[in-house]
Amino acid sequence: MEYSSKLIQEAVEEISKLPGIGKKTALRLALHLLKQPEQQSITLSEAIHKLRTEIRYCTQCMNISDEETCRICLSPRRDRSVLCVVEDTRDVMAIENTSQYLGLYHILGGVISPIDGVGPADLHIDQLLNRITESNGEIREVIFALSPTMEGDTTSFYLTKKLKDFDLKISTIARGIPIGGELEYTDEITLGRSIQGRTLYPQD
Amino acid sequence: MEYSSKLIQEAVEEISKLPGIGKKTALRLALHLLKQPEQQSITLSEAIHKLRTEIRYCTQCMNISDEETCRICLSPRRDRSVLCVVEDTRDVMAIENTSQYLGLYHILGGVISPIDGVGPADLHIDQLLNRITESNGEIREVIFALSPTMEGDTTSFYLTKKLKDFDLKISTIARGIPIGGELEYTDEITLGRSIQGRTLYPQD
Repeated sequence: MEYSSKLIQEAVEEISKLPGIGKKTALRLALHLLKQPEQQSITLSEAIHKLRTEIRYCTQCMNISDEETCRICLSPRRDRSVLCVVEDTRDVMAIENTSQYLGLYHILGGVISPIDGVGPADLHIDQLLNRITESNGEIREVIFALSPTMEGDTTSFYLTKKLKDFDLKISTIARGIPIGGELEYTDEITLGRSIQGRTLYPQD
Repeated sequence: MEYSSKLIQEAVEEISKLPGIGKKTALRLALHLLKQPEQQSITLSEAIHKLRTEIRYCTQCMNISDEETCRICLSPRRDRSVLCVVEDTRDVMAIENTSQYLGLYHILGGVISPIDGVGPADLHIDQLLNRITESNGEIREVIFALSPTMEGDTTSFYLTKKLKDFDLKISTIARGIPIGGELEYTDEITLGRSIQGRTLYPQD
């Protein structure tokens, strides 16, 4: 495509580097910005610049944070004996939304994925091991809440081996039929897992 | 949604103001940028800033341009007697790609759309009339290449009335069945138009 302006071309090229945005969408976004008040583009540009240059990570859980230690790690109401290991900050948000978890988190920053060139050294695994060591037994359970994919399972398996010398309860979130799902349309692997991982019916 | 950082929140809010991008996609894009080298975000941020603050429009055709007069308007090889009226720069790119048009363009910057609050005064209609007046009869044909929608048709109709006092051939691009389209699956309005607008079969 030939653009009538270098500025448009540069903006389209940079915007289309974002995942899921092609040249046509990028051009649509650039032309949209041109029709909006100048201030909107300036604010967007500054927000992106500040995001990348000023972002900080919690020294405890490695979550994105504005302070040295994040709000969750600082909270006196959280159960400091349980750590939930997740891939990124979106997973923290998703779990926080359930209001079912009151422990702390540890953000890996990804999962082991040789195809994408992500190995254990690229993740916050050393920080996890240090954190458990330094807790002097305060951390008693580690829950893996990673995606049920090849990469997630590989990462859980790797972490399990790394954690085997600690005196810890290690668990992983349940895999099974989603609430509201239809049994007959559930794939066989999920259904198989839901039978293997069946839970006892409460009896009184 | 509760974000763990104000920087993330601001970036998500600004990115999700773009059309077709919701909060979830904006968060995905922001987290993607955080994983990329810092330079990518800086270049993106600068490209957006420069795009909006340094952009210029060709004084002749109102197309986006780096110079006072755009490349097409300056070219000695273009036919200066024909003007093609389009909505925005994407339409110019689309028509240029066909290599079927050698005249000049005039970019309206939109179409009349009362629902979106766009009236004739928001478009480059005065510039079009001035341009035709100042050409002293050099411009002999005006082609409307607007989308075949209610808004496009309204705009064409409005322009036709504005142009009726000039000695001009006024035409609009053909509406009909797209090449490769199936007759039986064509909607009745398009098919009706394609019969009304039938062209004579070349005979020798």
